[in-house]
Amino acid sequence: MTAIILDGLGLANELALELKQEVNSLKVIPVLKVILVGNDPESQIYVRSKEKRAREIGINLEVVSLPETIEEREILDLIDRFNKQDEVDGIMVQLPLPQHISYHNIINALDPTKDADGFSAVNMGKLWLNEPNFIAPATPKGIMTLLDHYHLELAGKNSVIIGRSNIVSKPLASLLLARNSTVTITHRQTTNIIEIARQADFLFVATGQAEMVDKSFVKPGAVVVDVGINRTDHGLVGDVNFSEVKQVAGYLTPVPKGVGPMTVISLMEQVVSHAKMREENGAKSD
Amino acid sequence: MTAIILDGLGLANELALELKQEVNSLKVIPVLKVILVGNDPESQIYVRSKEKRAREIGINLEVVSLPETIEEREILDLIDRFNKQDEVDGIMVQLPLPQHISYHNIINALDPTKDADGFSAVNMGKLWLNEPNFIAPATPKGIMTLLDHYHLELAGKNSVIIGRSNIVSKPLASLLLARNSTVTITHRQTTNIIEIARQADFLFVATGQAEMVDKSFVKPGAVVVDVGINRTDHGLVGDVNFSEVKQVAGYLTPVPKGVGPMTVISLMEQVVSHAKMREENGAKSD
Repeated sequence: MTAIILDGLGLANELALELKQEVNSLKVIPVLKVILVGNDPESQIYVRSKEKRAREIGINLEVVSLPETIEEREILDLIDRFNKQDEVDGIMVQLPLPQHISYHNIINALDPTKDADGFSAVNMGKLWLNEPNFIAPATPKGIMTLLDHYHLELAGKNSVIIGRSNIVSKPLASLLLARNSTVTITHRQTTNIIEIARQADFLFVATGQAEMVDKSFVKPGAVVVDVGINRTDHGLVGDVNFSEVKQVAGYLTPVPKGVGPMTVISLMEQVVSHAKMREENGAKSD
Repeated sequence: MTAIILDGLGLANELALELKQEVNSLKVIPVLKVILVGNDPESQIYVRSKEKRAREIGINLEVVSLPETIEEREILDLIDRFNKQDEVDGIMVQLPLPQHISYHNIINALDPTKDADGFSAVNMGKLWLNEPNFIAPATPKGIMTLLDHYHLELAGKNSVIIGRSNIVSKPLASLLLARNSTVTITHRQTTNIIEIARQADFLFVATGQAEMVDKSFVKPGAVVVDVGINRTDHGLVGDVNFSEVKQVAGYLTPVPKGVGPMTVISLMEQVVSHAKMREENGAKSD
């Protein structure tokens, strides 16, 4: 038996075509501002993949490159300006930020409706509480879209998340719980992690440790979602040992071409959705 | 073997004495506004137990009783007024609210620093994300205080929560994760709930179903925290079958006199802490 591979890139390409048609039918042009501080080479790779998708779809993505030494105050002023500009649909701050800048201050300064990454406390809180009108972080949102595409039903199933990051694991837990899955969050201090992982119908791995999850973690037939992206001597790999786990899992996301493209397309969906709302509101006030 | 009973009432009484001394040493008087809509008899019981504690400690608790038919707008105006009044340290809205009023609108209108229950999206989000300066909901906060008092270490242990309410289970999960516990959230759609519960070192029960958790759910020696309060023909009972579970558990909270008094005292701690901050800020601006 070998796992069915969940084709994130294929689905993202399909969704990009649909989004392009949606954008063509709009009178307004969706605008996304990406704030990039410093010269982290990883960040630049991520930003380029977003630029490529945005161009394809017809989103006006502007990268605002700021020097490593910029003061927090200046970024806050810039955010304040974008918050007030009606034509801006989304603002995102590429992570990581330099040490002297408070991530919390920056992210919570975003207008919640323009917080394209959904990382602000108020969006995270609304998502956790199942309130209406939140923005879900792109990675967990993209994972849900991918699982839905393959008709993988979460309700009543055991979901186990390895890792507890704010940007992936916690919002993922919120979404899984809203889908009526039983949710376990494990982390470095979990003592019996393999035993817990082996009970998962859905296993989500977001640890940042290359290929740490081997087949001993996986119940036969389980759905395994690999959120990791690690650059190694033998190329890009995930947090899951792909060749081993694909012999045991029922479904498995590859790295690359799995969760990564779904993250980018989810961000774009968010921006287009804000632009549609803006057009509707504009039409109403005409 | 019989479980050690976690004496919530005893600890709450001790903490009340300490809080009273703190309040005596303040120049300002802590003020808590409790908004009570309609005539729900349960709500009135809960409000009275808060009034009693507040009086003991020296907190000025004012109950604002509003008719069942009041419009949402009027409650929002009232909250706006309390938000602006410097001398108000905390505002809480007794649940449940009548159907025609949006709980989300009301709760998210509170100034986050005066949101004494910590139920607003921004406070819940900050807690979930481990950001500084949040207000933790009183019940989970009280549970942590109780466990700490008995030196029950959560790190690396398996915590299982039965129930997924916004006001108890979700913020409890946030706090447990921040304490480095492995956290599982189960609910009505969980299929193998007994099997999961039996793996818990810490079992938290908040289902609102009288005595649903019997000894089959409990690993010998586990810590069992009962958040339920159910009025039955044979008096107040929790969500745990106390007489059965106490034969198996290592530690167990009683109902009443367990989590309930810890919830009330945690709310009072929150109000006093805001009053202290207000006094310090006032002193600075003198």
